[in-house]
Amino acid sequence: MYQTNKLALLTDLYELTMMQGYFLHKQNSLAVFDMFFRRQPHQSGFTIFAGLDPLLDLISELRFCDDDIHYLQSTGIFSTGFLDYLRTFKFTGDIYAAPEGSVVFPNEPILRVHGTLLETQLIESMVLNFINFQTLIATKSMRINLAANEGKILEFGLRRAQGMDGALSATRAAVIGGASSTSNVLAGKLYKVPISGTMAHSWIMSFNSEIEAFQTYADMYPDNCVLLVDTYDTLNSGVPNAIQVFKKLKAQGHSHFGIRLDSGDLEYLSKKARTELDKNDLKEAKIYASNELDEWIITQLIKDGAPIDAWGVGTKLVTGDTDPALTGVYKIVAKKTDQVYEPCIKITNNPEKMSNPGIKNVMRFFDQYNNMIADLIYLEEEEQKLLSQISAKAKIRFNHPTIEFSFFELTDYAYAIRLLEPVLSGEKRETAGKSLFDIQRFAIDELNKLDTTYKRLLNPHIYKISLSDNLKKLKYDLINKMH
Amino acid sequence: MYQTNKLALLTDLYELTMMQGYFLHKQNSLAVFDMFFRRQPHQSGFTIFAGLDPLLDLISELRFCDDDIHYLQSTGIFSTGFLDYLRTFKFTGDIYAAPEGSVVFPNEPILRVHGTLLETQLIESMVLNFINFQTLIATKSMRINLAANEGKILEFGLRRAQGMDGALSATRAAVIGGASSTSNVLAGKLYKVPISGTMAHSWIMSFNSEIEAFQTYADMYPDNCVLLVDTYDTLNSGVPNAIQVFKKLKAQGHSHFGIRLDSGDLEYLSKKARTELDKNDLKEAKIYASNELDEWIITQLIKDGAPIDAWGVGTKLVTGDTDPALTGVYKIVAKKTDQVYEPCIKITNNPEKMSNPGIKNVMRFFDQYNNMIADLIYLEEEEQKLLSQISAKAKIRFNHPTIEFSFFELTDYAYAIRLLEPVLSGEKRETAGKSLFDIQRFAIDELNKLDTTYKRLLNPHIYKISLSDNLKKLKYDLINKMH
Repeated sequence: MYQTNKLALLTDLYELTMMQGYFLHKQNSLAVFDMFFRRQPHQSGFTIFAGLDPLLDLISELRFCDDDIHYLQSTGIFSTGFLDYLRTFKFTGDIYAAPEGSVVFPNEPILRVHGTLLETQLIESMVLNFINFQTLIATKSMRINLAANEGKILEFGLRRAQGMDGALSATRAAVIGGASSTSNVLAGKLYKVPISGTMAHSWIMSFNSEIEAFQTYADMYPDNCVLLVDTYDTLNSGVPNAIQVFKKLKAQGHSHFGIRLDSGDLEYLSKKARTELDKNDLKEAKIYASNELDEWIITQLIKDGAPIDAWGVGTKLVTGDTDPALTGVYKIVAKKTDQVYEPCIKITNNPEKMSNPGIKNVMRFFDQYNNMIADLIYLEEEEQKLLSQISAKAKIRFNHPTIEFSFFELTDYAYAIRLLEPVLSGEKRETAGKSLFDIQRFAIDELNKLDTTYKRLLNPHIYKISLSDNLKKLKYDLINKMH
Repeated sequence: MYQTNKLALLTDLYELTMMQGYFLHKQNSLAVFDMFFRRQPHQSGFTIFAGLDPLLDLISELRFCDDDIHYLQSTGIFSTGFLDYLRTFKFTGDIYAAPEGSVVFPNEPILRVHGTLLETQLIESMVLNFINFQTLIATKSMRINLAANEGKILEFGLRRAQGMDGALSATRAAVIGGASSTSNVLAGKLYKVPISGTMAHSWIMSFNSEIEAFQTYADMYPDNCVLLVDTYDTLNSGVPNAIQVFKKLKAQGHSHFGIRLDSGDLEYLSKKARTELDKNDLKEAKIYASNELDEWIITQLIKDGAPIDAWGVGTKLVTGDTDPALTGVYKIVAKKTDQVYEPCIKITNNPEKMSNPGIKNVMRFFDQYNNMIADLIYLEEEEQKLLSQISAKAKIRFNHPTIEFSFFELTDYAYAIRLLEPVLSGEKRETAGKSLFDIQRFAIDELNKLDTTYKRLLNPHIYKISLSDNLKKLKYDLINKMH
């Protein structure tokens, strides 16, 4: 649906004005950028990293077409030399990232880009656009799935999503976060996700009676017959009519049927409907619920024993509800003008907002039960030393990212894993694109390694992200030098 | 960028399962659907209708390609007969809508679709996806523009938008709501919108000093030189360095330069910076501000006299902030099985949520000063009578939509205008697509006809939307019949 080779201009103008500057003044300078975010979305204790695979597709296929060049020329901002350079532009840098579906945390790099200043700058806006949105939604989806316990989550958000891609990308991310199907047929086709959905109120209203509408539907779709029961009166009309239809279906040997509740008090209605269904020997009939659901409402309904089997979640899943953006940023951390990379730091009056300088990775420490203990951000140059310390089970010092005197020492870990791995080298993908359900399984496995206290929906335990000794020293040295 | 002829599957599965049902049982039945919304977004007293033009493009070009048919076939849900029908599908219905950019209000139809049950059902999800999102953002944009008074709004949202189209469609809607430019280059190209932007912190950090970074930029872009002054220390480094560069630019005869503040206290910093700029005889230097702005922050800054000339607004504009979806719905209001259209109503226990039945339009009444007074929803069959009453300046009764005994009578109106007009007839556009800035001007003109009390950002005056006598009678008759 998207023509990825026509998306080179999906960037902020300042990336191109800066690029032209670099083209004239720093053609061969190299740079390293980190992407990270500063705050968990949705008051969550964890974040699910998503959006990587389509981002890498886009970057590896990035080309400026003739149309794009003509357009840029028409702005009068760009020189012929620079436009000629853009004509032959291909991304030649290297990208390192956490595997898609990873559990990630604030202030640690989740994606790192190496390349010329020109190319690293160009892709900033797309990196942020893709990762910010899909990570936001994958995290929301995982929270909703945690709330739903074993209940299925069906993603129903197309009509309220933020544009076409607000729908499509949200479906992709929702599945990574655990959704089992989508109502969006195009998303089903593009991402190979099961599609779900049966009828709207208009189906029932187009017939002369509810029972006729139900029966006609059941005759057509006897193996997947979910009847919407709230068009006229849920308990006095919808449920009794559905029962009549289900009894016939059951007599014919069918067993995949159910009702959908889309208004009213879902606890009250689901309990009453369940009782009626059971009384009529229709224990196999499922109860679907929809209508402005989110993790909080689902938690409450489950706590109160509402017998709901599957949840259609729309608006609040695909938009992120009241937290509609992950505030991820993309910051230069090193630059190389001569032979050596110099670390960079952005100084601000707010210590929480100072970036961590240098080319870094993250080491995640686990206990013997495969539980995540803490993450350590370290400089790449320290890696060999760190790995030998880890294999010797040596004591490792974890420094607080902003409070100078605060640290802890870790000794009782079993093993550690590096978070960022190469994913793109120029146009070449280092890892094959995984299926969406592979990524979903990975995300769920990741979450299983996280203590339940971090998964509490409200006021979760804060997972520790620390700095290595050398990184801490570098950061403080640079700050002191600036002052 | 989008291949509109590959978007037929941008629909919810239930539209297709219902369509197949209609294909088998009600091939020739006709239906009328209304789109309306129930609640103003962003606590606003008005809503700006947007998203129409790209929606009509999509609907008029809607085709199922071979790929789509194969995919649908692979689901096992659809019969060969129905798939053959889809192969030749074209939208043949009629769409009536308010002009794009119109001021609209809750519960009145803003778009009406006539056609076969099959085609009216298919397009539901796209109608809602396009109109809900762009209307949400156009309204937010207009609120921000009202707050900014004469200050320019630059849309900077790409990196935090909900996906690619969350960015592109948001730019389009932001311009309708009054934004003057965008940072998104692709949006600039697609929608013919001026693009803006100069540099990020990384530009400055890639040089050995801030002054070198500023001077290099000024040499390259002397006619549009906006320097970002908060990389190291806004008042002690950024502003003095910028002044040094601007003085040279001014001496060379240039006058389009300014600073951008992206952190810290914007009132304090803008006042201090303005003083320094003025002291250095740089009154022409503009001050741009960015950083999590919205209508509330801008209002406060202007009230407190912050000398800011232009506002870069991102996240909170393009996502709608804490109100990330317009809850527009699409409801069947009439069906025709034999010769005559029968009105339909959706009954619920919540009187506010009962839809208004029948084929309707909206008459908007104005006083002699072109101020909007109130809107009257009426049945199409009443139109001739209503128009004669209006031309005779007769007294018109406006009935409250849900409270039976509540009404008012209007006599002192000057004229009235019908809201919904034909916009698409089959594949044929009834109105040519307007330029985005034409739509913006129309929206601003519309807003000028609205009393300031409705434009108050907080706790606005509620504009009256009423029912005609016949519509009220029909609604109550149908409700009584159902009971």
